[in-house]
Amino acid sequence: MADTMVHSVKTDAASIDTVETPALVLDVDKVDRNVARLRAHLAALGVAFRPHVKTAKSIDVAQRLFPSGNGPITVSTLAEAEYFADGGFTDICYAVGLGPDKIERARKLVARGIKLAVLIDSVEQAQALALSARDGAPMPMVLIEIDCDGHRGGLLPGDPTLIAIADIVKDGGIELGGVLTHAGESYGARGGLGLPEAAEGERAAVVAAAQALRAAGHPSPVVSVGSTPTSHFARNLDGVTEVRAGVFVFFDLVMHGIGVCALDDIALSVVATVIGHRPEKGWILTDAGWMAMSRDRGTQKHPVDQGYGLVCDIDGNPFGDLIVEDASQEHGIIKLREGSTASLPDLPIGARVRILPNHACATGAQHEAYNVIEHGGHAIVANWTRMRGW
Amino acid sequence: MADTMVHSVKTDAASIDTVETPALVLDVDKVDRNVARLRAHLAALGVAFRPHVKTAKSIDVAQRLFPSGNGPITVSTLAEAEYFADGGFTDICYAVGLGPDKIERARKLVARGIKLAVLIDSVEQAQALALSARDGAPMPMVLIEIDCDGHRGGLLPGDPTLIAIADIVKDGGIELGGVLTHAGESYGARGGLGLPEAAEGERAAVVAAAQALRAAGHPSPVVSVGSTPTSHFARNLDGVTEVRAGVFVFFDLVMHGIGVCALDDIALSVVATVIGHRPEKGWILTDAGWMAMSRDRGTQKHPVDQGYGLVCDIDGNPFGDLIVEDASQEHGIIKLREGSTASLPDLPIGARVRILPNHACATGAQHEAYNVIEHGGHAIVANWTRMRGW
Repeated sequence: MADTMVHSVKTDAASIDTVETPALVLDVDKVDRNVARLRAHLAALGVAFRPHVKTAKSIDVAQRLFPSGNGPITVSTLAEAEYFADGGFTDICYAVGLGPDKIERARKLVARGIKLAVLIDSVEQAQALALSARDGAPMPMVLIEIDCDGHRGGLLPGDPTLIAIADIVKDGGIELGGVLTHAGESYGARGGLGLPEAAEGERAAVVAAAQALRAAGHPSPVVSVGSTPTSHFARNLDGVTEVRAGVFVFFDLVMHGIGVCALDDIALSVVATVIGHRPEKGWILTDAGWMAMSRDRGTQKHPVDQGYGLVCDIDGNPFGDLIVEDASQEHGIIKLREGSTASLPDLPIGARVRILPNHACATGAQHEAYNVIEHGGHAIVANWTRMRGW
Repeated sequence: MADTMVHSVKTDAASIDTVETPALVLDVDKVDRNVARLRAHLAALGVAFRPHVKTAKSIDVAQRLFPSGNGPITVSTLAEAEYFADGGFTDICYAVGLGPDKIERARKLVARGIKLAVLIDSVEQAQALALSARDGAPMPMVLIEIDCDGHRGGLLPGDPTLIAIADIVKDGGIELGGVLTHAGESYGARGGLGLPEAAEGERAAVVAAAQALRAAGHPSPVVSVGSTPTSHFARNLDGVTEVRAGVFVFFDLVMHGIGVCALDDIALSVVATVIGHRPEKGWILTDAGWMAMSRDRGTQKHPVDQGYGLVCDIDGNPFGDLIVEDASQEHGIIKLREGSTASLPDLPIGARVRILPNHACATGAQHEAYNVIEHGGHAIVANWTRMRGW
C-alpha cells in the first residue's frame, strides 16, 4: 500500500501569479540547498542525521531528504509516525515524552515492522512500559530524555533517576536505546552568538548521561542531540551518534534572527493579494492574515522585529523594511517598519506579494499543501499535501 | 446535494477520558446558551442577526444558530462561502475586501442561486466589478466598507469616495446593498469599559455613511455592524439593519478579559494529557503545545495574562492560577501564574486536563473536528468536522 501512494499531484493553478491567495509556496531548490548544507556539515563531523519531519509533515518533502531511503526520521506525534510509516519510512523516533495511554498505539507501529523509539524521563513512564510489555509482544525501543539547558523536560545527566529508569526498562525486557536531548534554549541566541557553546553544552550533557548509563551496565548505543541552531554551529560531536534538526529544511525569520541562515535561504513563503490601502496610515491591506501566516510572533523580542512576516515581491526579493505589522484572521496590514526612511512601494489593488514567515513550522500548519516552484520561476510544478492532527 | 450531506459523525472515542489527546472539545449546551443570549439581546434591539461563521467553520455549529434555516451568515473566505452554500445556506456576506481576482469565483456562487454580498472600499474595486458585469451575467450585491474606529480598512463616513464608488457600482448595473463596518478596536477594551460607547460609535459611523449615500440617490437598504464586544454592549441600534458577530458562539479568554463573558461561558477547550514534571521549576508538561492551542497570545497585554490557556480539571473547572505558561510545537508547560500563592495540583503522569483557549478562532483552526459533549458529561456524542483553506 505505502509504496503505491501518490502524494505529488500536479495542480490546476499553473503559476503563483494565478493561484488562489493566500497560498503557501515552497522553493524546492532552497530546500535541496538547505538539506545539502547540513548533510555536509554533519558528514564532516562523522555523525548520522535523523531529520525532524514535524516542520514539513509531508512525504514529498521527506523524500528530498531521503530520495531512495526509509529514514531515519524524527516525529512529534504518533499520527506523523503512522503517516510516514505509510509512506515507506521504517526508522522513526517519536521525540515527545510518551503519555501512558499512547503505549498501545506505539506498539501497533512496532507490530507493523517499524523500528520505533519512544522517549521517557520518569519512573512512572518506565513502569507503564514494563507493565505493557508483560504480554510478551514487541515493544518500541526506549530513549531517556536528558535536560541539557533547562528548556523543557528531561533529567539532568547526573540524576540517579536515570539509572532507576534504565533498570526498570531492562528488567521489563525492553530495549534501552540510550539518551536524547534538545538544546531548546539555543533559540534564544542572536546573530550566532553563543551557538558553538550551546552545541558543546548539548553534546557534553548527553554524552555524560550515556557514560553514567554505561557505568551502570546499560550499553546505550544511541546518543542523540538536536536543534537547528546547534546542529549548524557544532564543531565537535565526539560521543554523539545522531543529530536531529527540523526547521532547517525550510528556515524562517526566527532562524535568520538567530543567525543560522540568510534571508535568501528561506524556502517557504505565502503569496498574498493586495485588497486595500490606507495611505494616511501608511497601510497596505492584503488577504494574508494570521490564518495564512499563523499567530507566531517569534521575532517579537529580536533586535529586528519582523511583525507577522517580511514582505517580498512576487520573485521573493524583500522590499527591505516592509513587514506585516498586524494581522486579523483574513487581513494582513503591511507597513514600513517603525523608523524606516524607505518609501512605501507602489502595490495597487490586485498586486501580489510573497511573505516570509517568522516560523515555518507554524505557518506551514495553517495550510493544506505546498505549491512547489523551482529554478526561481513562477510555475507551480507540483502540489505537495501536508498531514495534520494527532 | 447539499441537504443530503452528513456532517455529524458518531465518533469511535466514547469519552473525553479516552479520546486521543490533544483533542478539541465543544460543550454544545454552552454554544446554545451563548447563541440564545445574543439572539435575545438583538431581538430586543429590533435588529437582524447575521452571525459570522469563521469561528466555527462548521455546518453543524451553524445549524445550532439556524436549526431549520439557511442563514443569513457572514464568512471570511470564499471557500467558507462555498462550503456553507453546499450545506444549504443561501444568504451569505463575504466580509473581507474583495480582491479583483476573486470576482469570477464570487459570481459562480451567485450563478448557483446564492444571495451573496461582497465588500469593497475603493474606486479600483468598483471599476473591476463594473468591468466584470459587462457580460450581463449575475453579479453579487455590493457593500461599501466604512471605517468606524481606524482599525483596518474602510472609508470614513464623510469621504466623497463613498459616493464615487456607489456611482460606479450603480452605473455598472450592480446592486448596491449599502454599508458595513466592524468595530475592531473594541477588542482593546477591558472589563467592559467603553464598550457601550464603542457600539454607539460603530452605529453612528455606518448610519452616517448610509445617510450620505441616500442623500446622493443610493437607497442603501443594508446597514451592517458587528463585533462580539459591541454587539453585546449595544444599547440602541437605530438605523442599523443587521448585526454580525462570530466568536460569541464559543467565547474565549480574550472575550473574558474584555468583559463580554464569564469563564463558564467558554464552550471550547482542549483536552491534554500530563507527560512529565519538573518539580524544581514548578512545571507540569502536557502534550498540548502550540499545535493544539495555536500561537495566539491574545491575553498577553491584558491585566490577567493567561499564557497559552487557562488550565481546568477534566470537568472544566479552572484550577485558579494554573496556566499554560509556555508552549513548543507538541509540549505545553503548565505553571502557576507569576505571584500566585496557590499550590500546584497533584496531576500525575497520564492525568487529563482541559485548557480554555485565548482565542477560539485560532485554536479551533488547529483541529480537524470538534468532540462534542453535552449536559456536563464526559461522553462524546458527536464529532463535527471543520472546513479550512481558501
